[in-house]
Parts: sequence; C-alpha cells; structure tokens
Amino acid sequence: MSAPPRPHAVRVFEVGPRDGLQNEALLVPLEQKLQIIAKLAAAGLTDIEVGAFVHPRWVPQMADTDELVRRLPARDGVRYWSLVPNERGLDRALAAGATHLGLLASASETHSLKNINRSVDVVRAENRRVAARARAAGVTLRGYVSVAFGCPYEGDVPLDRVLRLAEEYLELGVAQVALGDTTGMAGPVQVRHAARRALDAFGAERVAFHLHDTRGTGLVHAMAALEEGVTTLDSSTGGIGGCPYAPGAAGNLATEDLLYLLERLGIASGVALPGVVAASRWLCDELGLSIPSRYFRYAMADS
Amino acid sequence: MSAPPRPHAVRVFEVGPRDGLQNEALLVPLEQKLQIIAKLAAAGLTDIEVGAFVHPRWVPQMADTDELVRRLPARDGVRYWSLVPNERGLDRALAAGATHLGLLASASETHSLKNINRSVDVVRAENRRVAARARAAGVTLRGYVSVAFGCPYEGDVPLDRVLRLAEEYLELGVAQVALGDTTGMAGPVQVRHAARRALDAFGAERVAFHLHDTRGTGLVHAMAALEEGVTTLDSSTGGIGGCPYAPGAAGNLATEDLLYLLERLGIASGVALPGVVAASRWLCDELGLSIPSRYFRYAMADS
Repeated sequence: MSAPPRPHAVRVFEVGPRDGLQNEALLVPLEQKLQIIAKLAAAGLTDIEVGAFVHPRWVPQMADTDELVRRLPARDGVRYWSLVPNERGLDRALAAGATHLGLLASASETHSLKNINRSVDVVRAENRRVAARARAAGVTLRGYVSVAFGCPYEGDVPLDRVLRLAEEYLELGVAQVALGDTTGMAGPVQVRHAARRALDAFGAERVAFHLHDTRGTGLVHAMAALEEGVTTLDSSTGGIGGCPYAPGAAGNLATEDLLYLLERLGIASGVALPGVVAASRWLCDELGLSIPSRYFRYAMADS
Repeated sequence: MSAPPRPHAVRVFEVGPRDGLQNEALLVPLEQKLQIIAKLAAAGLTDIEVGAFVHPRWVPQMADTDELVRRLPARDGVRYWSLVPNERGLDRALAAGATHLGLLASASETHSLKNINRSVDVVRAENRRVAARARAAGVTLRGYVSVAFGCPYEGDVPLDRVLRLAEEYLELGVAQVALGDTTGMAGPVQVRHAARRALDAFGAERVAFHLHDTRGTGLVHAMAALEEGVTTLDSSTGGIGGCPYAPGAAGNLATEDLLYLLERLGIASGVALPGVVAASRWLCDELGLSIPSRYFRYAMADS
C-alpha cells in the first residue's frame, strides 16, 4: 500500500514555555514568560503550552502557572494549554480560568514510578476523574503518552500498549492524543509504523507527535510522521530545554527547524518562521538561554 | 513506481580532517592531524579526506598536506583522499605519493568565480588535464560538484547541469561523483529526485551525496538519499567545520549523527560509532573544538 500524501497543512503545537522552560535551569519570571508567549502568539502559533499545575516544590519553574494563566490576554484563535497531573491541579486550573488542559501518562511502568512515583494504573484512574470533571466544566483536553517510542529504563515499548492508552484517553473525551518520544529513542521506521497505526485507528485530527532531538533524529522523525499524514507536531521555540535524562543532550524538536522543513515541503502552518526566530533571539539576548536550533543559528549568521 | 529498497550497506566517506578542519579557525599541527586520522581509521572509516593540494596562502590549514600525505601510514583497506584544484596541485600530490585524489567543480558560475576566481569552463578544462595525468599515474579519482542543490548567489541550480558535470567527470575516469549541498539549501523532495536521476544515470556505486546541515536538514536529506538507494554519504566527525558562508551556522553532516541513523535503520557501515565519538571527543578535549553533533552531545551526557 502506498504511503498517504503528505498533508497540505500542519498544526505546530508550541511547548517551549512549558516543556522547554521546565528543563532550563534559569527560573524565568512571570513577566518574561508573558512576553515570550506574546511573541510566540504574534508569530502565528495557535496552540501554546504555557504551564503545569504541578506542585511547586517538584517543578519550581511552573510555580507561577496559576497567575500566568489568569494574566494571559485572550487572543483570537490562540489556545493556551497547561498540564494537570491530578484533581488538585484541576482545582487550581479551573480556579485560574484555564480552558485547555493536558493529561499525562507514561507507556512504561518503570518510567511512571521513577518520574512521578505513581504506577500507570493509579495515573489512569486519576486521569479518569480529572477528565470527567474537566469535560463537565467545558474544558478541552489533550492526552500525552510519554516514552511512547522507547523507555530509558525498560527499553522497547509495545506500540499496542501506547495505542490502548491513546484509545482510553479518547474515550475520556480528549480532543487529541500526543505520542511523546520523551528521550529521543524512536527510529524512522518505528515512527512511520506508529503513525500509520495511530492514524488508521483514530484519524489525523486526533493524533499529534511530540518529538525529541536527543540523538539528532528529531527532524528525521518529523519527516517520517509527515510522510504518513500526521498533521500535528509538537516543538519548542529554539529547541530550548534539553533532556533531563541526558544532561547536555538536546531536548524538544526546535520549532524553527520544523517550520523550515514544512516551508521546504510546501506545507502550510500559519506560523511565520522569522517570528519564531525573533522569539528565540529574545530568549537568547534577554535571558541568556542557549538556543540549539540549527535554523536559528543559520538565521543569526545571515543577519 | 515504488521507491527502491534502502541499501543493506552504506559507505561513510569521512571529510572531517579536510572539509571540517578547513573551516575551523584553529590551525591544527601536523602531528595532531595524524592522530585524528589514526583515530578515524581505527573506528573503521575506510575513506578519509585528509588534505588539499591548494596554495597555502589561500588555505593555511592545508599547507602541510604534502608532508601529511607522505607521513600517513598505509592501513589495509583505508583510502586517504586529497583535493587537487589544478596541475600544480597534481604535481605535488604525485610527488607526495598520493593515490586517491578529488577534483572540484561548481555547478554555479557565480559561485565558481567568487570561490576560486575561475569560471566553470576554465575549471573543467583544468580538470580534464589533471584527470588524464592522474589516471595515467594510476591514481583513483573522485569528482565533486559543489552547490549541486542550490547556490548562495544564484539560487536554484538546474539538476540537468549537475548531472552533465557528473557525467563529464565519469568520462574523465573518476570512480565516483559527489554531489555537494555546499550551503545546505537542498530540500528532501529535491534530494530524492536528484538521487533517483543520478542513480538511474550512473548507478549507486558511482554516486555519493555530500550533505551539509546549515539549516538543520542534513540528516533529513541523508534519510531521503538512503530511501532512494544512495550508498555513499559524506560526513565530518562531530560535524566540525561550520559554514564559511554563514558564520556560526552548522556545516558538514556529522558522522556520528549519520552513523546513528544507519544503525537505527539496520544499515551496515563497518564503522564503530563509539570510535567516532572518541575521535570527536579528542578534538574537543585536545584542540578545544566545538562539536555540534547531536549524537555526540547525547553520548557525552550518558558517559
């Protein structure tokens, strides 16, 4: 069977302010978080992950999420997303007026235990409760499956398990499931296969790929996903954040690198690449963050 | 027509000691060049570009090529390559005992004039003379086509022109033509198309792709080339060298990143990834070079 055509348009889901910043050592003040989000929205990004309603002791970078969400100005067509790990987080999210929330679950028991000290079954049960309340409150949900392509502890992760978690999320009413290559362990053939199975099962609208560049294959995997018709890809401005499991290694796929690839392929995204470069440049100049994005470095050379 | 199967085995052509080092500001002493080449050969690389018989005034980094080539120890199965831009360079190469030489030509007249102050026709005529003498002396030749996928001055470069230059090289008796994406301007579809045309015309044995990572798409292009059956890919240990046209931007595709992709795809290369990582680490620790390779940074984090 021949591969489906590449999509005409793709949604770029920006996770820099949460997934990216969370892995940066520098604690970014609220005002500057608001500025970076403003720049990303100005570049045309419509989905921006801004925070996480987690315990401030575990993730100090996210301690200001409540106030951040309250302070974010409504922008036509822009959706601000935050993560909620449990009902307590949901209480805070609803109090802050959040309308778009992300749930988390790991495809590996060991990773779940080591990462958040909860078994996958406990997490699933909590997500069920959170989802029911969130849906009743009119919130739009997204469900993440971490280590979907491989676990740093368990190694291979069966795709069937990933798809069952995704299916369960969809039964809970999430709008989309994001399959995360948390430590960049995927391979191109694996990505294609997972994309084919996920899109066949759930449809392109319901599936996102959340790719990391830990071993340098992030953009290759984005290409593989696009070749199978995936229409939502997560990325982080400048590729900020790194990898908590391998300090010094790359983390999220860089938004600029993804956007350049999309442009080169003639795939519309609605996002202005120079606008994202400007956002990353601000992170570099104002906050001193290191910007790994290849395209960014090229853009800086040319300017 | 369905795409050909990916190759079972690929030759990785290592250009770090020449293309990589040439673009590094640090002038590396001969003894250390010999050490790095030794490490690369020990890792299993069979084709290593070690120098260029160019005028020392233009390329100081290559001033020691004559002595380097004389001093290189013969190693079973390892071919040391050097570039020769003209007959004077060939005189030096033959005197030094070089047995594997590379010819250069640009697919863009403007690039040729700006880069070496010679028109393409003058270069082609010189290459004809060099090739005839080199072949008579029993030397094995390689022919490079620079800016084969796009020129920083002229923009688009017609593929037909590239293929004509390649064909001419093969008529001169080169063993292989290397199509170079000198400033990383290629796109994945373009690479696939060029690979298909070149392999149809000349066969996989005669064709190499020399990719740069300037805009972050180096490995995506390697993947595209592999998908079309390309069996020789050039790369540089650690991705050293950068881009002389865009200072600060990436240069050559990194050998580690390529090797990791090949491993992940189950494609044999005969090269030990840890050995190349060790070579890059030596460049970093001993010479202070910055190593852009993503896989290298992951390997350093894990160690």
